[in-house]
Amino acid sequence: MKAKKEITIYDIAKKLKYSPSTISRALNDHESISKNTTLLIKKVAKEMGYRPNSLAASLRNNKSKTIGIMISRINRPFVSSLISGIEETARKAGYNVIISQSNDKYENEVINAETLYNSRISGLIVSLSMETRKLEHLRRFMDQGIPIVFVDRVPDELDIHKVIIDNYTAGYKATQHLIEQGCSRIAHFAGAQHRNVYRERKKGYLDALKDHHLPVDNDLIVSFKSLSFGEGEKATRNLLDLPQPPDAIFSANDTAAVSAIMYAKKRGIKIPEELAVIGFNDDPIASIVEPALSTVIHPAIKMGQISAQRILQHAAEEDENNSPEVTVLPTELLIRDSSKKKA
Amino acid sequence: MKAKKEITIYDIAKKLKYSPSTISRALNDHESISKNTTLLIKKVAKEMGYRPNSLAASLRNNKSKTIGIMISRINRPFVSSLISGIEETARKAGYNVIISQSNDKYENEVINAETLYNSRISGLIVSLSMETRKLEHLRRFMDQGIPIVFVDRVPDELDIHKVIIDNYTAGYKATQHLIEQGCSRIAHFAGAQHRNVYRERKKGYLDALKDHHLPVDNDLIVSFKSLSFGEGEKATRNLLDLPQPPDAIFSANDTAAVSAIMYAKKRGIKIPEELAVIGFNDDPIASIVEPALSTVIHPAIKMGQISAQRILQHAAEEDENNSPEVTVLPTELLIRDSSKKKA
Repeated sequence: MKAKKEITIYDIAKKLKYSPSTISRALNDHESISKNTTLLIKKVAKEMGYRPNSLAASLRNNKSKTIGIMISRINRPFVSSLISGIEETARKAGYNVIISQSNDKYENEVINAETLYNSRISGLIVSLSMETRKLEHLRRFMDQGIPIVFVDRVPDELDIHKVIIDNYTAGYKATQHLIEQGCSRIAHFAGAQHRNVYRERKKGYLDALKDHHLPVDNDLIVSFKSLSFGEGEKATRNLLDLPQPPDAIFSANDTAAVSAIMYAKKRGIKIPEELAVIGFNDDPIASIVEPALSTVIHPAIKMGQISAQRILQHAAEEDENNSPEVTVLPTELLIRDSSKKKA
Repeated sequence: MKAKKEITIYDIAKKLKYSPSTISRALNDHESISKNTTLLIKKVAKEMGYRPNSLAASLRNNKSKTIGIMISRINRPFVSSLISGIEETARKAGYNVIISQSNDKYENEVINAETLYNSRISGLIVSLSMETRKLEHLRRFMDQGIPIVFVDRVPDELDIHKVIIDNYTAGYKATQHLIEQGCSRIAHFAGAQHRNVYRERKKGYLDALKDHHLPVDNDLIVSFKSLSFGEGEKATRNLLDLPQPPDAIFSANDTAAVSAIMYAKKRGIKIPEELAVIGFNDDPIASIVEPALSTVIHPAIKMGQISAQRILQHAAEEDENNSPEVTVLPTELLIRDSSKKKA
């Protein structure tokens, strides 16, 4: 079931070389747009066959009271906590939630967008797949005035709703903690660098090293595809085989960090004395591995709650201007035995 | 958005005191129903205002190519593997998947059913919430000919599609393994007994004890609400405080089993020498705890694949007769160090 091709504000924007938000404002008689521009835009829109808010209006009268979620993978504790937060806030307001996962594939994310669109959701909460680099598949939601909130893995665009954590500071603090424990050859397990979360964590790591006058050794920075257990084991083997192995690892997730601990122990390496390890997320495995894994706590439930609130605000038409809000939440270090070299 | 009250085959069945499947067959001129009965049923259906397949026909012409999933909680590795299996099979056939979770609450499951119904799904795969005891909320799918497949946590009704594992044999084999290791006071962490999976696991446990002439001690059978980490810890403390503590635990899931190992170790109990432990599911935590947890492997991905196949068979209208199929898959014991007392 394909939606038929409708003229959108993006088509008009392209034709007139205005920004889509200018087009949108003009069509809604927003005072920030001059009268002449408004008239021109309305004329061209009519000529192009633009139907102002036809479907949007029908959607308003036929609300599904459903929030759609597009997420990378449901099998991550961070993701399920995020979804719990969304559900909690949504249900209190009489909304329900449906979920689709991309398995980190762009192709799946495109199909999920179509499925959720056809389910007539009232709003969409998106955490991008590892592969996604374009947002074309989300345009029709924007065109129809269906609010979108990006959470955690967000695009770099400025003019959108985002709910994120301060990944840079988290990466900085995790690295600084290892330095304070006396580590000086600190490796980093880095995730895909076009995703904001992993890029920022790495930036924090690099700046912490620089600020503490430690050299950056590229041999100690491992680029991961998916931060899986298998990848973590392999990376740890390679690092321990270096002529000058690291004395610490800051991993961008817990899975790879736990695999590092388990593999290093098999090789007789003492954790944390010979290799201090810190992860990210506080997954359940973090407190089960021995020694227990130090990590960074994500306020996942709160991120979900705030994301749902943004959607509900739109639905209540409280913020007609719909100015994008970016919420940045702090994280916390949770120091356990895997990195505690000093009392 | 409430669907208006339509006369269903259940209403006709109630009035005529026939089974719903007899009504359905008669309305579809099935040869197994006598001519007179068919005529009577059609007459009464018409009088009651029954609209044969009106929405079903419109659905057929307006297929969403979407399979809806109603699941208890997405944050369980078994559930995410099950969903992966469904998605894999669905996507190969050009279908997509949307997911809703009940968080084990009946109330949420009812709302999820309504949301998925309104999303015009082509089929529904359901694993019941811990609380669910009625299936009224799924009637409208049945009435409209939208296929439903129950998986893992299924109702006791006979006349439906089910994909399950052999929980009885799994419970029996897990208990028998502990007996073979020399254990004789075997405790059981039991889940909610109105859910087939937990009831069958317990039956297997009880029968294995009886067949090996071991007494059943009710002090050693702990009834759990949700088999959580906290519940497992508390249950283990109570068991270890008994005048005659157990020498083994068979837990109906891995979470509670891992909590038992971690708590017992804190008390200085040797695993498996003084307390052998076996869980259920092979969650990631099972191979991370020390000693690693023996467990029962679920063919979760395969269960998902088969469930999706059942839906696709309906969609392809290959099985007009729609006779319910029950698939029972075997499980495997995975013996690790937490229960290996003998070489």
